[in-house]
Amino acid sequence: MNIALRPLAILVLHGPNLNLLGDREPQFYGRRTLAEIDADLRALGEDLGAAVDCRQSNHEGVLIDALQAARGRYDGVLLNGAGLTHTSVALRDAVAWAPPTVEVHLSNPYAREPFRRQSLLAEVCVAGIHGFAADSYLLGLRGLVAWLRDRTEPNDTRGDAR
Amino acid sequence: MNIALRPLAILVLHGPNLNLLGDREPQFYGRRTLAEIDADLRALGEDLGAAVDCRQSNHEGVLIDALQAARGRYDGVLLNGAGLTHTSVALRDAVAWAPPTVEVHLSNPYAREPFRRQSLLAEVCVAGIHGFAADSYLLGLRGLVAWLRDRTEPNDTRGDAR
Amino acid sequence: MNIALRPLAILVLHGPNLNLLGDREPQFYGRRTLAEIDADLRALGEDLGAAVDCRQSNHEGVLIDALQAARGRYDGVLLNGAGLTHTSVALRDAVAWAPPTVEVHLSNPYAREPFRRQSLLAEVCVAGIHGFAADSYLLGLRGLVAWLRDRTEPNDTRGDAR
Amino acid sequence: MNIALRPLAILVLHGPNLNLLGDREPQFYGRRTLAEIDADLRALGEDLGAAVDCRQSNHEGVLIDALQAARGRYDGVLLNGAGLTHTSVALRDAVAWAPPTVEVHLSNPYAREPFRRQSLLAEVCVAGIHGFAADSYLLGLRGLVAWLRDRTEPNDTRGDAR
Amino acid sequence: MNIALRPLAILVLHGPNLNLLGDREPQFYGRRTLAEIDADLRALGEDLGAAVDCRQSNHEGVLIDALQAARGRYDGVLLNGAGLTHTSVALRDAVAWAPPTVEVHLSNPYAREPFRRQSLLAEVCVAGIHGFAADSYLLGLRGLVAWLRDRTEPNDTRGDAR
Amino acid sequence: MNIALRPLAILVLHGPNLNLLGDREPQFYGRRTLAEIDADLRALGEDLGAAVDCRQSNHEGVLIDALQAARGRYDGVLLNGAGLTHTSVALRDAVAWAPPTVEVHLSNPYAREPFRRQSLLAEVCVAGIHGFAADSYLLGLRGLVAWLRDRTEPNDTRGDAR
Amino acid sequence: MNIALRPLAILVLHGPNLNLLGDREPQFYGRRTLAEIDADLRALGEDLGAAVDCRQSNHEGVLIDALQAARGRYDGVLLNGAGLTHTSVALRDAVAWAPPTVEVHLSNPYAREPFRRQSLLAEVCVAGIHGFAADSYLLGLRGLVAWLRDRTEPNDTRGDAR
Amino acid sequence: MNIALRPLAILVLHGPNLNLLGDREPQFYGRRTLAEIDADLRALGEDLGAAVDCRQSNHEGVLIDALQAARGRYDGVLLNGAGLTHTSVALRDAVAWAPPTVEVHLSNPYAREPFRRQSLLAEVCVAGIHGFAADSYLLGLRGLVAWLRDRTEPNDTRGDAR
Amino acid sequence: MNIALRPLAILVLHGPNLNLLGDREPQFYGRRTLAEIDADLRALGEDLGAAVDCRQSNHEGVLIDALQAARGRYDGVLLNGAGLTHTSVALRDAVAWAPPTVEVHLSNPYAREPFRRQSLLAEVCVAGIHGFAADSYLLGLRGLVAWLRDRTEPNDTRGDAR
Amino acid sequence: MNIALRPLAILVLHGPNLNLLGDREPQFYGRRTLAEIDADLRALGEDLGAAVDCRQSNHEGVLIDALQAARGRYDGVLLNGAGLTHTSVALRDAVAWAPPTVEVHLSNPYAREPFRRQSLLAEVCVAGIHGFAADSYLLGLRGLVAWLRDRTEPNDTRGDAR
Amino acid sequence: MNIALRPLAILVLHGPNLNLLGDREPQFYGRRTLAEIDADLRALGEDLGAAVDCRQSNHEGVLIDALQAARGRYDGVLLNGAGLTHTSVALRDAVAWAPPTVEVHLSNPYAREPFRRQSLLAEVCVAGIHGFAADSYLLGLRGLVAWLRDRTEPNDTRGDAR
Amino acid sequence: MNIALRPLAILVLHGPNLNLLGDREPQFYGRRTLAEIDADLRALGEDLGAAVDCRQSNHEGVLIDALQAARGRYDGVLLNGAGLTHTSVALRDAVAWAPPTVEVHLSNPYAREPFRRQSLLAEVCVAGIHGFAADSYLLGLRGLVAWLRDRTEPNDTRGDAR
Repeated sequence: MNIALRPLAILVLHGPNLNLLGDREPQFYGRRTLAEIDADLRALGEDLGAAVDCRQSNHEGVLIDALQAARGRYDGVLLNGAGLTHTSVALRDAVAWAPPTVEVHLSNPYAREPFRRQSLLAEVCVAGIHGFAADSYLLGLRGLVAWLRDRTEPNDTRGDAR
Repeated sequence: MNIALRPLAILVLHGPNLNLLGDREPQFYGRRTLAEIDADLRALGEDLGAAVDCRQSNHEGVLIDALQAARGRYDGVLLNGAGLTHTSVALRDAVAWAPPTVEVHLSNPYAREPFRRQSLLAEVCVAGIHGFAADSYLLGLRGLVAWLRDRTEPNDTRGDAR
Repeated sequence: MNIALRPLAILVLHGPNLNLLGDREPQFYGRRTLAEIDADLRALGEDLGAAVDCRQSNHEGVLIDALQAARGRYDGVLLNGAGLTHTSVALRDAVAWAPPTVEVHLSNPYAREPFRRQSLLAEVCVAGIHGFAADSYLLGLRGLVAWLRDRTEPNDTRGDAR
Repeated sequence: MNIALRPLAILVLHGPNLNLLGDREPQFYGRRTLAEIDADLRALGEDLGAAVDCRQSNHEGVLIDALQAARGRYDGVLLNGAGLTHTSVALRDAVAWAPPTVEVHLSNPYAREPFRRQSLLAEVCVAGIHGFAADSYLLGLRGLVAWLRDRTEPNDTRGDAR
Repeated sequence: MNIALRPLAILVLHGPNLNLLGDREPQFYGRRTLAEIDADLRALGEDLGAAVDCRQSNHEGVLIDALQAARGRYDGVLLNGAGLTHTSVALRDAVAWAPPTVEVHLSNPYAREPFRRQSLLAEVCVAGIHGFAADSYLLGLRGLVAWLRDRTEPNDTRGDAR
Repeated sequence: MNIALRPLAILVLHGPNLNLLGDREPQFYGRRTLAEIDADLRALGEDLGAAVDCRQSNHEGVLIDALQAARGRYDGVLLNGAGLTHTSVALRDAVAWAPPTVEVHLSNPYAREPFRRQSLLAEVCVAGIHGFAADSYLLGLRGLVAWLRDRTEPNDTRGDAR
Repeated sequence: MNIALRPLAILVLHGPNLNLLGDREPQFYGRRTLAEIDADLRALGEDLGAAVDCRQSNHEGVLIDALQAARGRYDGVLLNGAGLTHTSVALRDAVAWAPPTVEVHLSNPYAREPFRRQSLLAEVCVAGIHGFAADSYLLGLRGLVAWLRDRTEPNDTRGDAR
Repeated sequence: MNIALRPLAILVLHGPNLNLLGDREPQFYGRRTLAEIDADLRALGEDLGAAVDCRQSNHEGVLIDALQAARGRYDGVLLNGAGLTHTSVALRDAVAWAPPTVEVHLSNPYAREPFRRQSLLAEVCVAGIHGFAADSYLLGLRGLVAWLRDRTEPNDTRGDAR
Repeated sequence: MNIALRPLAILVLHGPNLNLLGDREPQFYGRRTLAEIDADLRALGEDLGAAVDCRQSNHEGVLIDALQAARGRYDGVLLNGAGLTHTSVALRDAVAWAPPTVEVHLSNPYAREPFRRQSLLAEVCVAGIHGFAADSYLLGLRGLVAWLRDRTEPNDTRGDAR
Repeated sequence: MNIALRPLAILVLHGPNLNLLGDREPQFYGRRTLAEIDADLRALGEDLGAAVDCRQSNHEGVLIDALQAARGRYDGVLLNGAGLTHTSVALRDAVAWAPPTVEVHLSNPYAREPFRRQSLLAEVCVAGIHGFAADSYLLGLRGLVAWLRDRTEPNDTRGDAR
Repeated sequence: MNIALRPLAILVLHGPNLNLLGDREPQFYGRRTLAEIDADLRALGEDLGAAVDCRQSNHEGVLIDALQAARGRYDGVLLNGAGLTHTSVALRDAVAWAPPTVEVHLSNPYAREPFRRQSLLAEVCVAGIHGFAADSYLLGLRGLVAWLRDRTEPNDTRGDAR
Repeated sequence: MNIALRPLAILVLHGPNLNLLGDREPQFYGRRTLAEIDADLRALGEDLGAAVDCRQSNHEGVLIDALQAARGRYDGVLLNGAGLTHTSVALRDAVAWAPPTVEVHLSNPYAREPFRRQSLLAEVCVAGIHGFAADSYLLGLRGLVAWLRDRTEPNDTRGDAR
């Protein structure tokens, strides 16, 4: 991945219950805490030339407020909507307005309950990644940064996957 | 991502019509050809300590043969099932038997026709990634290599996302 | 529309993301900001003998609190539930308890995604109006005021459309 | 609503069984007859600078003929498709060809039988209004006239809600 | 069946394609023509003290017109909606306004194509009868006349089956 | 209805809860008891040259036994399956083997709960009648007797409605 | 295609809104008017030894009347049911009785709205053709004429595609 | 049909089990063998100024290979996907990339099992034809040739039916 | 099939309407009576070292009683649930508690009505067999006996198919 | 089972992934390899007077080719379609043309994922058997041989279960 | 819970397979036998001033008979419909006629198979309780007694939850 | 119910709109206010040896926060999710992590709108109770306390109903 030098600002948003990471079903979600994941993301961001801010909330409205405020302040968003992924049209509308967003999941929602197989967010996100546990975030950050850099390069040879 | 030194062997499998990449709907799938993607994957593999073999076929049976033969020869599989993703139980059964597999898509299937929103493969894959165009493969390779290394480390702190 | 003199109090409630009006997809939602719409509503209200209060929130809970508090303080409600329209039973329950409510939409939800064609609120609202951009609010206010006045006139010749 | 002076011609079309208004379920549809509603519409039209013609038919074919003939003769249409709203693709096709159309319903179809919750017409109409009894027509006329005037003004600040 | 002496007026309405009876699929619908059936109905009506008028049309609008005009002129209606039974909300709305109506079918729609198993009319009819070929009409007339007489007798011991 | 002289034997079968008639929801099912209905059926049978036996059971198995035993002993069956109408494939299989059967319902199941709109029996019955309260049985008996006589007459001009 | 000499009579029926051809969405339906298409059909009919009569109506009932009257007068029917294709059981019943009928569509209904993907007519038509714009009619005429001639030839080697 | 002189190259592709034609259910598919149909197509092609190549395979992959290879070598494709029509997204993706394709069926799939009523190919084909037995191919060839010639004529008056 | 010598006790249970075998639709279910099938089963049982008891009932409750009583007395059950197969959760619950059960059907339920394609019993049975007419029972007995003997052998090389 | 002396030829076809038997999920499919099962089938075939040929393929097309070639060479087919059972209309069409076929499954598909509960093959097969692990094949062979012999005996007392 | 002194009579009805309690899946349903539960219920009834009679049956008809007979003899019913809960309209109709009924389940049906998530009884019961194992009955008895006493007290401050 | 002495801490959580109890639809939800219910719960808790804390919120996020904080502080939770019951995956995820939870509803949701019949919470709760108005809470508290005590007793004879 050829990574250019333009500095980028990335917002990482964690949805409901993700603050429990490390404690909650560790055999499923892993034992790394959210603080550790955020630290990893900030470190990787530095390597990639991207400033990374992280935020978690159990409140749909807070997440929407954050997505709205991201416009003009951030170049892209990394979003784990958690349980809201499957039910919130309001969050989807906020994503559609926010900077280019990548959908992230720790587990593989397609191997769980049927209602987790439908994502209201996927259609309005640029791309998505699931099932790599905490690495889903790190890979998502790499992909998002590359995607954003490609959009500003003159000789783009990639299709628009949106 | 802490990457250990044990050498790995990875099989990359491309499904029907992916040989057309570069020519087919470039505004959608990008202008990189499959040969270029395969070269990128092999190069990245070298960096990560993984030998990468690539194969494409328009024949479901050939893909199943390859997945069966992968057991014992490869540590993991990167699979873009293309159109078969949504319709082939036979391919799914082969994936369930094959080495740990990561599902890859160039485009965002959730922003396309309704019949592309269901994946028969997702449930039996370790993880998945979509929408980053050719980068989906590169990120998938990174994720798969890390996932495999984590499974052989004594102090695993990640959950099993399968 | 014969408009009587009893003074009325009307609450206007705007749901998630409507604070973005003017900036967000102007070709779709128009270029008038929410502040301008609120000003128009207050002005029309004065003409119709109705005091109009306006409130927006991205938080479902805040909207429910406001609907509960409206009982006894307002004669009617003008509600644009935005994305919550299609998903929130809790909001619906609050509407069922609130003063008579008129459902308002700027765009035509029936010409958009399938999940926008179902409204959980419609069944418990008095009436609804969509697709006139900002005029949806103004026409909704006229309709609501007339509907409320009709309910207090001795010789009502209109049916109860609820 | 700023209303300009260009004279407009509006066709009002009433679908099957609406000739019964005043007699049929008055507790539901109100006691005003169709003739009274038409008179109110013509009067309001005069105020708004719009000539209003009204027609009712129980025959799908007659309504389609009228919608076809409206093109070139009328600037807009106010349509209550009644029972045909939910079942007639032929009427929908005629609306798609006719001048800009606003869908009107006296009652709230969303609080009635399930088969009344789907409108084949809504998607091809400019806007819609329901549940205000006879006022649905009057508000619809106001909205339609404003919508048409906006389309011919140089500094349009409203979005296209179609 | 105890039949009282009050004279009744009954309208018999035949829907699309029923004018073909005798010619059309006689092994299915029988060889009696519509004229013969109408004659039988008038004769039986005389025995039962009921004047029977019969009408057939292939036009939905004509049937609706007839149902509307029946109010005040007829005590009850015997209706074979034929193909419109399964698709016409407009006809259903007319039945809901018309005098008490009994639904009649010559064949057994439940032993035919799936789309014939749903009747939009059944819910708003008093009662229904199917599968007795031409006798469906005669039995329906007997049932309707008895139903109407019961409604005017002082000591009614039957439930309202509507 | 021309009624020939060959004597016929008819079995009337009443399903679960019909023994409660007269007591249970009289505003819905009428106040005539099952004993009175059975007496009426036997009297009408005598007029029509048909011996009528009646039986009621709350047990699906007893009804199936009775339908099986009817073959060779009865010419036709009048069956009110009650709640089993909508759920019992076993009863349906017994009807398919039994003598020609007419389905009878006191109320109008199409104006009740959705699960009552599907009959597993209708497809294997000759004909059906519903909504005339106790008269449904009497009209059903008339129809069945006529249907049976028609099948043995040399010059049959009716179609087979099965 | 070997075309025999027996003269044939063909009825061409155009459904609702097809009289608008040439004006309505020309980029979709083409610029040839219905009169021009009818002239082409009559000319081709002459070449094939078939007299062609053409009729258009926006009224379902008129189309049913015409299909009924076709029996005995025409050897086959070319039918474009337009919007009624998807909703009219009454039209379907008329087709089932009419001479052998070929279904024709100008556009490709499978590439449009979901409700256009179901045809109630297809099952009772001999054959169908769509998507060739005005040529759909001409090819349909050729196919119908050949189909009819094959049915009267002694050594038929084609299967019955009905 | 005005046919110009530019020579065209057409690929005819027959899907699974079509090699059995003549032997398999002749009352349904006719007694002409695939070899005879191919000969007829080549002969008609000569008349129309089009070179016709024909190929059959029971292997989905072989059909996809052929569709891919057709690009640049053929001007259009005549495709009978047979059983793959209803299940293969991979074939659909190949058609979307291949030269303009016309879908052909010998029988009328709409008068057969429910799973044959859905075509995954129809949406990406130019046009379609079914039910004329072997003539479906011949008419499809005529239509395809005319469609292709129209696309290269300066004064095209037909709409694009795609 | 290697069959060991441990004596086994097998219960054969026949559901509703199976007592009619031989008389009922012989072209479908064959002409062997239930008594003959039971005799065949007992004879085959003797060969296999298994004592076979047979019972039939039209009563769901009797079948459940028998399944309950089988525990501790029989090693396995051969069950033809007939019409109850598709509708009885109570029977399913009894099977789940009973000794290992094999599901048997005389006909092929998948070639009949849609509601016969779902079995509530299949999921809780060990195995199933259908479509061999009376041989379904005999093959089922062989399979069940082998399955039971395998479960008690030390070197089991078969998977548990449950 | 009375087994006659006419020699029979039987084709056994194994679908995708069945070559893995013994290795793949032995707790589920057992530890016998496909070669061992084939040997058992040939041995049992000898006892029953039937020559048994066995073939496995992961390619749908190869299986279809084999089914086509079976006609005229084999008296019957034993088919385990594996994953193609649930998705392949092309395989189903080949089965419909092939010699009488019995469907076989090692495991109990009704106790697995929902998409395995639907078989496209079952409707066109003579009979089916599932859940007895490798014995499913052996019992299926017995059943098929008996079914074929019964079809050639003069005094057939079994029904046709097809 | 304030418990008054009027003596009450309560019928406890246990549906199919509940006689197995203690033996059947004890890890799921607990190890208390039905006899022990009945004894606990009678003891608690004494404390609450209610005479408790208990009955179990595997026969739907017996349960319906008991519910019918309960009217006039019992003040309320505690019903565990077991497997019939999800399938029996006949049982539902009996409950609708019986004294006020409380639905009881030992396990949590919502955490089991999908077909257990629908209760046909719930709509016609006063209240329901599930998941407390044997305590479900005891809590249900407490609730039912309180509900019944509230209905006869002059100062009822509870809503009617039916 | 044998109640041991270990002191327990119970959290009672009330969802959206439950603060309105007493005012809102008293005929449905009863006239006791939430404060009165909370007082009753605390009093009963004292009797049972359990400290009860109560909280209400209209905000989904606040409820999730409270459920998260409950872990380690409370032994069990009594939860009335109100409208969020049917729509919130985020709340469900919080319940899955929280201490053992009992679902409570005042009314009978199965006798209301269809969308209230599905609970996203039920599957992850220990048990549930509905329809007893305010007593639902009191009975739920009794059941929860007993369930918790049973889990810590050495000789547990109850099944795990979870």
